[in-house]
Amino acid sequence: MISIVLIGSGNVAQHLITAFLQSDEIELVQVFSRQKESILQLISSDKIVSNYDEIKVADIYIIAVSDNAIATVSSKLPFENRLVVHTSGSMPMEILDAKNRRGVLYPLQTFTKNKTVDFKEIPICLEAEKEDDFKIIQTVSESVSTVVQFISSEQRKALHVAAVFVCNFVNHLFKIGNDICKENQLSFDLLKPLIQETAQKIIQLTPENAQTGPAKRNDTATINSHLNFLTDENQKDIYKLITKSIIDDGKKL
Amino acid sequence: MISIVLIGSGNVAQHLITAFLQSDEIELVQVFSRQKESILQLISSDKIVSNYDEIKVADIYIIAVSDNAIATVSSKLPFENRLVVHTSGSMPMEILDAKNRRGVLYPLQTFTKNKTVDFKEIPICLEAEKEDDFKIIQTVSESVSTVVQFISSEQRKALHVAAVFVCNFVNHLFKIGNDICKENQLSFDLLKPLIQETAQKIIQLTPENAQTGPAKRNDTATINSHLNFLTDENQKDIYKLITKSIIDDGKKL
Repeated sequence: MISIVLIGSGNVAQHLITAFLQSDEIELVQVFSRQKESILQLISSDKIVSNYDEIKVADIYIIAVSDNAIATVSSKLPFENRLVVHTSGSMPMEILDAKNRRGVLYPLQTFTKNKTVDFKEIPICLEAEKEDDFKIIQTVSESVSTVVQFISSEQRKALHVAAVFVCNFVNHLFKIGNDICKENQLSFDLLKPLIQETAQKIIQLTPENAQTGPAKRNDTATINSHLNFLTDENQKDIYKLITKSIIDDGKKL
Repeated sequence: MISIVLIGSGNVAQHLITAFLQSDEIELVQVFSRQKESILQLISSDKIVSNYDEIKVADIYIIAVSDNAIATVSSKLPFENRLVVHTSGSMPMEILDAKNRRGVLYPLQTFTKNKTVDFKEIPICLEAEKEDDFKIIQTVSESVSTVVQFISSEQRKALHVAAVFVCNFVNHLFKIGNDICKENQLSFDLLKPLIQETAQKIIQLTPENAQTGPAKRNDTATINSHLNFLTDENQKDIYKLITKSIIDDGKKL
């Protein structure tokens, strides 16, 4: 059994609490949080503390707070030479205070409150200063996920940038699709099967082979007709730029 | 039984052939195609013709060819006053030669060769000049799909533009994600659960509520760090522009 103290009560923290409580190999000793309310339905209140002095001894301390709070929280921990990790995609391991042994446990997924995800399929990207610590983080990760991998800080940053493109930016394109539907008295539901199939396709095909549409065909007539149709400046600019990028890719082949 | 002659042998045509052959309410009389090879595994060769003179009488003629060939093909049909429809998202009904009764049957999906799709869930958008013809197109559509809807030419254009954003452009963002992974010796597989979850989320949530990431949080430090990381000009420009668009949306709330 590996004992864990989890620090945080936001989206990622909540999903980690749920996953750890379901694991036989993990003892979730405590959760440190200033916002007790958001996690009271997940864990009994006597396991939640909000003063640094009350934090118990554990094999690993997992800091799942917002990026800009990681450094402060890690420096306030009132102990030294214990294993402390953060869960951020964009922060280097070195953001953690050097008084403790450091590592990273980054679950690569988009977490939404009150929407369960299957943690088993979520890739967890690991990093640690010391080999023994890496093994502890690995055991913790493998107790909740089947896809666990060493990733350097630099690679993690690349992965996070890529994740912004394929998740955050993709969702914004869904929003534009929804806006266009609304303006034309169309139900967004009409686009949902297309959205699901687009995501399904790249499980089997490379994105290059899955690419279709007017830009891929260099179909200037349709492209111009679409640009004339669009009135919102951001939508028009995004249409132009991604079309250009698809056409540029075609030239490289 | 409604009798159909299908014109075309590309992606859309192939998926329609498969769907019609499975329907009890449809008699697929003939397929007109100059490229017999691509459909020989779907339908027996005696049902495939390549001369306009050989085309038989049918209740409805479905033209599933590339957008720029629709007008020519419809004008070459050697008969008048029969029901002729096209399957294009971006072309108005009026592109069809006026010598025949006109309509549209637009299946809103991304079709890939050799990848089956469940036609039952594909929205089909319909339009017709005459009410009786609309009923025929409706019956044909309902024999293969459960989501059949009247959509005007103008709405269909809006839907096609929206589809370019949520399908073609989304796939290009997948390609950028894949490119970033490759450059950093990371497997694109790491991003696939995230991609699936991003698509799943908008079935339950509006895209506004599903939006996460540095732009949504207006997290300038992460945004600048990502922009410094990116070296490809198109990637950088797309990152800037979609980030701006997400931030602009936040200001409107």
